[in-house]
Amino acid sequence: MTRAHVSGASGYAAAEAIRLLHSHPSFELGALESRSHAGEMLADHFPSLRSTPYRFAEPGSVLERATRDDLVICGGADDEAGAIVPELIVRGARVIDLSARYRFDDSAVYGLTEWHRESISGAQLIANPGCYPTAALLALLPLAGLASPRHLVIDAKSGITGAGRTPRVSSLFAEVSGEIRAYALDGHRHLPEIERSLLGAGIAASVTFTPHVVPLARGMLVDAYAIFDAPVDPDAIAAEYARAYAGSPFVRLLLDGRAPSVAGVVGTNDAEIRVDASGSVVRAICAIDNLGKGAAGQAVANSNLMYGYPEESGLATRPIFA
Amino acid sequence: MTRAHVSGASGYAAAEAIRLLHSHPSFELGALESRSHAGEMLADHFPSLRSTPYRFAEPGSVLERATRDDLVICGGADDEAGAIVPELIVRGARVIDLSARYRFDDSAVYGLTEWHRESISGAQLIANPGCYPTAALLALLPLAGLASPRHLVIDAKSGITGAGRTPRVSSLFAEVSGEIRAYALDGHRHLPEIERSLLGAGIAASVTFTPHVVPLARGMLVDAYAIFDAPVDPDAIAAEYARAYAGSPFVRLLLDGRAPSVAGVVGTNDAEIRVDASGSVVRAICAIDNLGKGAAGQAVANSNLMYGYPEESGLATRPIFA
Amino acid sequence: MTRAHVSGASGYAAAEAIRLLHSHPSFELGALESRSHAGEMLADHFPSLRSTPYRFAEPGSVLERATRDDLVICGGADDEAGAIVPELIVRGARVIDLSARYRFDDSAVYGLTEWHRESISGAQLIANPGCYPTAALLALLPLAGLASPRHLVIDAKSGITGAGRTPRVSSLFAEVSGEIRAYALDGHRHLPEIERSLLGAGIAASVTFTPHVVPLARGMLVDAYAIFDAPVDPDAIAAEYARAYAGSPFVRLLLDGRAPSVAGVVGTNDAEIRVDASGSVVRAICAIDNLGKGAAGQAVANSNLMYGYPEESGLATRPIFA
Amino acid sequence: MTRAHVSGASGYAAAEAIRLLHSHPSFELGALESRSHAGEMLADHFPSLRSTPYRFAEPGSVLERATRDDLVICGGADDEAGAIVPELIVRGARVIDLSARYRFDDSAVYGLTEWHRESISGAQLIANPGCYPTAALLALLPLAGLASPRHLVIDAKSGITGAGRTPRVSSLFAEVSGEIRAYALDGHRHLPEIERSLLGAGIAASVTFTPHVVPLARGMLVDAYAIFDAPVDPDAIAAEYARAYAGSPFVRLLLDGRAPSVAGVVGTNDAEIRVDASGSVVRAICAIDNLGKGAAGQAVANSNLMYGYPEESGLATRPIFA
Repeated sequence: MTRAHVSGASGYAAAEAIRLLHSHPSFELGALESRSHAGEMLADHFPSLRSTPYRFAEPGSVLERATRDDLVICGGADDEAGAIVPELIVRGARVIDLSARYRFDDSAVYGLTEWHRESISGAQLIANPGCYPTAALLALLPLAGLASPRHLVIDAKSGITGAGRTPRVSSLFAEVSGEIRAYALDGHRHLPEIERSLLGAGIAASVTFTPHVVPLARGMLVDAYAIFDAPVDPDAIAAEYARAYAGSPFVRLLLDGRAPSVAGVVGTNDAEIRVDASGSVVRAICAIDNLGKGAAGQAVANSNLMYGYPEESGLATRPIFA
Repeated sequence: MTRAHVSGASGYAAAEAIRLLHSHPSFELGALESRSHAGEMLADHFPSLRSTPYRFAEPGSVLERATRDDLVICGGADDEAGAIVPELIVRGARVIDLSARYRFDDSAVYGLTEWHRESISGAQLIANPGCYPTAALLALLPLAGLASPRHLVIDAKSGITGAGRTPRVSSLFAEVSGEIRAYALDGHRHLPEIERSLLGAGIAASVTFTPHVVPLARGMLVDAYAIFDAPVDPDAIAAEYARAYAGSPFVRLLLDGRAPSVAGVVGTNDAEIRVDASGSVVRAICAIDNLGKGAAGQAVANSNLMYGYPEESGLATRPIFA
Repeated sequence: MTRAHVSGASGYAAAEAIRLLHSHPSFELGALESRSHAGEMLADHFPSLRSTPYRFAEPGSVLERATRDDLVICGGADDEAGAIVPELIVRGARVIDLSARYRFDDSAVYGLTEWHRESISGAQLIANPGCYPTAALLALLPLAGLASPRHLVIDAKSGITGAGRTPRVSSLFAEVSGEIRAYALDGHRHLPEIERSLLGAGIAASVTFTPHVVPLARGMLVDAYAIFDAPVDPDAIAAEYARAYAGSPFVRLLLDGRAPSVAGVVGTNDAEIRVDASGSVVRAICAIDNLGKGAAGQAVANSNLMYGYPEESGLATRPIFA
Repeated sequence: MTRAHVSGASGYAAAEAIRLLHSHPSFELGALESRSHAGEMLADHFPSLRSTPYRFAEPGSVLERATRDDLVICGGADDEAGAIVPELIVRGARVIDLSARYRFDDSAVYGLTEWHRESISGAQLIANPGCYPTAALLALLPLAGLASPRHLVIDAKSGITGAGRTPRVSSLFAEVSGEIRAYALDGHRHLPEIERSLLGAGIAASVTFTPHVVPLARGMLVDAYAIFDAPVDPDAIAAEYARAYAGSPFVRLLLDGRAPSVAGVVGTNDAEIRVDASGSVVRAICAIDNLGKGAAGQAVANSNLMYGYPEESGLATRPIFA
């Protein structure tokens, strides 16, 4: 039994990590630290934790309680992670940071599970990928086996929980309902994260990235279009994707005209991917739960790898429907 | 042409008033004052005002610009209204306050249009009713013609705009979506407002009031149940309601099994009411738009009465569907 | 390991039962019969079953395959249940019927788990309660220990899945979104079901029942108001409810001002209940998942009792959020 | 006053046309024909028509009543239009067909208002464009002034009313809510319509078109990406778009980082367009109401042109918010 602490525990992704670890066979929860809600019950803040006995701990609790080989999941903002991670590392704890703080830092392993299993297994500090990069990279990285595309278009649709639980007018029900919103049209902080991994895999194409918010709480669909200079072979593409995800239990490659379903992955660590090719254009569509595979689910899968537990441990939850 | 100023102009109800006055044949907009957004365009804050040329004015602008016989709509909180209304009254402006500040104050006329047309017409200061009281009172006041009920149950369902545009966790899309929330179970500030008007009409029953938020932005349905000591005559009830609203263009009494439709009143100043009786229980159901008849629509109808314009002027908008 | 067959398997409640039984430690799925989709994969019809290997079986399959001591869950309409249940009973299978077919029939045990555990345990045929009756009766039955109320008002709010998966204009997204709909105002088929159980418990009050559809897929909140002839003692009420549900793992009685949360029970077999009393009025609010405790969850709990498995077996799923 | 008849009057787009014509200063409604609801009141089927006095007419009524110079809007399916249009034309009526029946037929003028004003003005038969083609073509046609792009990606997001009011499982609330659905991945019937107009304007690029349904009733956002062989000049692009829409009252070109808003066009005939360019890629985003500019709104604007009324007549409705 490994002890898992969570800082920044009052956000959506942190709460999802707590939900998953609560019923995980190999982790037990330790300090669940919150700046804003210390002393209050998690059950009163999160319907998903309604029947759990936990209380938010005081700021400082994670640093105080985390010992060698404990797991710490940093669920807060970049600066919150930066304030505790160095000390945790010194102390021998293992850390998964959900923020962007260490995603460009060589001291951390980039935690895109399917593409970095080996280094994740031996890591002490994991920079967990952003939700858009997770879906976009799962959709595009298998193309690395081919000639590089000339251009990539990444058109992403996300539920509003990706914007976090800090109250903002733009996250209010009345602003999200009935609206489709393209945003960050002059540059989203996730674009460099996507480009870095593509480049690392040898894909050097220019990228146009358009994120959108659509009226749902949870879930994400990314349509990625790769424009090549010459026609591509659909069979070769299909083979690359099949090979890339052959040993990946959370990735479902869809065949026969089926389309990725956001409703089919919400609440899970699953990713559904469909790829097709026509002329010199490849279209790869990926559905994930932005709080699952795009945050807490992937964090738990990475925790499993770090501690030598089965990759799927604690991640069997199925979506509910409807 | 009457000049209309709006204070607290960045809230949902104020924006709806501005939308209505923008296309009103007899009002032109003056100062649209906002503490938080002075200098910014309303078009960038409200999709409904996307093609209008207005900018938010500095704090103090309404007091500075409002002159004798101008209309001022106070769209801000109770204290904001309290800070400017006395001076406006002295100056001879006419005021409709959307807040609760003057609802229990004898200096103001309570602006429930259908029940106080005459005093509204001559008023200088109107306390515009809350959304729950508007729907509940429209449903219940015609009962005043009968023996008083023993008890009233008011079970109300509202869209989340009733909670205002100030960002709060409880108004976020992800918290409202997929939830039905009963709240203020130990007492809602609208209950005394309802009781006061009932009592004023001679209905002295005790009241149980349960407000709920359901997942929609705009609209309200109130189910009001009156429990009498003896069986009531359904025909007498129907006659009372028909009589009460005979000259009211915005009230649609539904017959023949039709049910009030929130979708049928959103964006309008309409109220749909259905009443039935069985044994000693009367059930009256009322649908309104909480921002329309429950706030800005009623304010515009009251403005029409105050200035001698036709009651329906500027309020012809139909709901869109779906 | 008990074999469980499902007829009428393509409806929402049936699919939820299949989801629950799929991961149940003591049941394995047998024939999943569908008139309309025989031969097709369940994964293509239900996001919640996306990663399962099942196919819909031909009409007649359940009757063909069900043997002594197998479980059959009837998920179809009243007539579909009526067509197979007698033969199944003769054959020694055990049956839980989700339809209304046997709810007024003495050959069946009424499966309101918390109130009929003993007879459920020994039953061969269970009439599983409707969703509205489940929530209303859980809210009201503890009152049986007191003097009978004079009148009951049951104001219910439901997600649209309660209307089933058969396509109807009134269940379309564009008709449910943005609307609050009161319906069946002249009598709902669940009212006699509610009255029968109340009467069976000695509560003889007249009942006014108003069901509503609000814009969510899943979940139900019932506000039940009991009007007594004399003031009631809040402490006595609280004690009755505590006693009634002391041994019931799926009922959470809420204290200290907390309100039942639909989001906190969706996907589960839980019920959250809050009761308060003021003067001669008791208000009891109950939240359930209409497809969970209101249908499939309760069916699985009843199955557990029938076969001697722990009541909570296979029902540990927590809601996801948001 | 011109008389306007509507066939196929019980669909979403037809109802929206009726709503607009009901308050149009120059049209009066004639026969509103429906196969399925003849004799019933429109008020009972459409919240937006709640206070109107119309009844659905018998099948055959439009053909019976339409005379020379009357307007007929065909709101039904392709075959319904095909069954009456030839006779209507012979009789001298003017026809706007909302179906796809005449979109590839030289007997009809393609009714994309902003690009075919002159031929629309003199037309007797208008093939009103589909919603996806309307948004995609408004976004892309101004590029015709430049060198032809190599490839076009059209990624479209639509509300579910685009699928019509005929009940289907895939249009149910519980299937649309919480889901993002890519569909018609092997070819959508709107793609040839888009390609034909592009080609007609001299844009010969291959097109990848991906339509999606997102959880809202009404509204559409289309992201169109044009990949050129060489870098493009952002200023030249901006100038082309400004020139293209200089005299178009319903098109709002957005500058200064503002993004098109679906909520800002719902209920209107407006289109909001933003275009930017980076390297050899142009991104043009267009928001419309799929039932407004994408169907009924554009039909009314075209009607205005056909009869010599001002283009904006009867189309002043602003969106409501939220």
